[in-house]
Amino acid sequence: MRAAVLQAWNEPFQVREVHLDQPHQGEVLVKVVASGVCHSDLSIQRGLLPMMPPIIIGHEGAGIVEEVGPGVSSVKKGDHVVLTWLYSCGYCRDCGRGRPHLCEKAAMATMSGAMYDGTTRFQLDGQPLRHWCGSFAEYTVVPEQAVIPIRKDVPLTSACLVGCGVMTGVGAAMNTARVEPGDTVAVVGCGGVGLNVIQGAQVCGAERIIAVDLVEKKLELAKQFGATDTVNPSQGDWTDQVRALTAGKGADFVFEVVGNPNLIQQAFAAVRRGGKLVIVGVPPMGQQVTFPAMNFPLEEKGVIGSYYGSPRFRYDMPRILDLYMAKRIKLDELVSRQLKLDEINLAMSLIEQGEVARSVIVHG
Amino acid sequence: MRAAVLQAWNEPFQVREVHLDQPHQGEVLVKVVASGVCHSDLSIQRGLLPMMPPIIIGHEGAGIVEEVGPGVSSVKKGDHVVLTWLYSCGYCRDCGRGRPHLCEKAAMATMSGAMYDGTTRFQLDGQPLRHWCGSFAEYTVVPEQAVIPIRKDVPLTSACLVGCGVMTGVGAAMNTARVEPGDTVAVVGCGGVGLNVIQGAQVCGAERIIAVDLVEKKLELAKQFGATDTVNPSQGDWTDQVRALTAGKGADFVFEVVGNPNLIQQAFAAVRRGGKLVIVGVPPMGQQVTFPAMNFPLEEKGVIGSYYGSPRFRYDMPRILDLYMAKRIKLDELVSRQLKLDEINLAMSLIEQGEVARSVIVHG
Repeated sequence: MRAAVLQAWNEPFQVREVHLDQPHQGEVLVKVVASGVCHSDLSIQRGLLPMMPPIIIGHEGAGIVEEVGPGVSSVKKGDHVVLTWLYSCGYCRDCGRGRPHLCEKAAMATMSGAMYDGTTRFQLDGQPLRHWCGSFAEYTVVPEQAVIPIRKDVPLTSACLVGCGVMTGVGAAMNTARVEPGDTVAVVGCGGVGLNVIQGAQVCGAERIIAVDLVEKKLELAKQFGATDTVNPSQGDWTDQVRALTAGKGADFVFEVVGNPNLIQQAFAAVRRGGKLVIVGVPPMGQQVTFPAMNFPLEEKGVIGSYYGSPRFRYDMPRILDLYMAKRIKLDELVSRQLKLDEINLAMSLIEQGEVARSVIVHG
Repeated sequence: MRAAVLQAWNEPFQVREVHLDQPHQGEVLVKVVASGVCHSDLSIQRGLLPMMPPIIIGHEGAGIVEEVGPGVSSVKKGDHVVLTWLYSCGYCRDCGRGRPHLCEKAAMATMSGAMYDGTTRFQLDGQPLRHWCGSFAEYTVVPEQAVIPIRKDVPLTSACLVGCGVMTGVGAAMNTARVEPGDTVAVVGCGGVGLNVIQGAQVCGAERIIAVDLVEKKLELAKQFGATDTVNPSQGDWTDQVRALTAGKGADFVFEVVGNPNLIQQAFAAVRRGGKLVIVGVPPMGQQVTFPAMNFPLEEKGVIGSYYGSPRFRYDMPRILDLYMAKRIKLDELVSRQLKLDEINLAMSLIEQGEVARSVIVHG
């Protein structure tokens, strides 16, 4: 089987023949059908996230169960699945509380690039090879908790997006912020995740959805995803523009989807009294954000983070696909092109060039 | 009738004979029986809050309705009431949404020291005299919305505390944070409001309540109000101590009740993954707080403000008094001494000296 291998930071991916073990106890072998290519993949390639090469990445995958290891009970051969790059042990306080995305045990395994027991399933030239989800491979082995069974009538080339960008964006509005009908929201950054915050806010019944981006093409796309108003910061202070659109009050929720500390700080001023700034974009390590202290208590403003859209994986991923089938959530329109695994480096350069929507790798 | 008048910032209060008009349409004349003396009164005296002298302050009052103006329907002569220093118009989006403390119309009136129409009801030597709540006077006139009827079996000398400190503290835990049974909380600053955050957390079922203060006497009092553990920052980094008490994880909620930007910044490190820092203390105007940006999304931490304990006045104030009668909330123990109106300047100096609990002015 073939996989795109990242041998070292800042090197191109190499598509190589790799070896994959059978699934162990509690693991699942998945034939990957499609994988979105996400900005985080580029960050890993550049060494900006703590994932150590050599490694197989790709973390927005969907496919078909090929084989299950001993003890696996929730899926069987032939099931369609979305892969979740973050999973959850199922047994800790956070899992028990319905916040599986905060599970520390699984996060450690995820970030290590290995299985729970520290071993790996891939080998390259006889050497162990780490993987993180591994949807840039034709097959992957992941823990049962990382495999979310889904309905079979959703094309896997669209379903894969729920594995990261769609969950992150829709979930930020639906789960983290809990946008309510009639709320006003502003979404700063209308790339792949921002568009999903917009459609998540729309599904939640937001009345006013203000898209903020420097790129007019992205603002146009934002309107197709549900934005009611657009603001381009090149035309003057964007927080002034948001306030002007909201009778001077600001938005109930402002989502920052870029991860830019300056934008995050600015965004605070676009939040209405009693409203919240929701940080979805991941700022670079070591950077700080500063806010006026008094406004927290006196205006009851808040700043909250959203991680992966606060997912309850087995509830949220299927329900987003139900919403897709009900035509309340768009997926197909997020895909700007389908590429082959051999075109992985083209896919990365398209991200680098700021292509508006997603490339999806379709395995042959 | 007599009132303590603040003639200018940084001057002592003068107890003077003042004139008070009859209540106008929609207003209520209250015979003030008792008034807590709160740290904010000292801040106003010092010119640190935007209340312009000459003015009658005192904003933690309880009393008996003496007369109602035309159109008043919710209270009648003889009713026992708590005065709320912040009220709400009852008709705007925020009031309609169940967040009356965010009502901007009433906030403007409150802060102006006048009634909704900009006029005043007090006069001194024939000149109009502003008032903010005005519980340092023997009688006051306030809008109907500022008058919360309460059960008659609660002593007014204790009930008055619900008008500010108790509502602010208990409400921060109960309403703003919504502490859940089994949660771990830390409370930084165990003065009058901090003690109420502690007992609010206890009523909500918090399992672990960590009191943080430099003053051992305050930590002792904190235990009487429900703290299960105490941390004194004089014995080493307090956030390390909080983490050591929580298996290295931090608290679900950390309440900062001092309003000190340094403490607020430190407190972020004592918050557990998925937890929140709740800013209850009001930091000085113009000061900033800085946090590590990446921790918001990756650890899903939040920083939220609590204003007056996010009260729904007509629901929360009576229910806190019900909890008091049910012996779930302490009030009497918050009062360290009762003073006469003529002792107002003594009361202020006791606050300045950091007396542990509250003085209550009891009108003759």
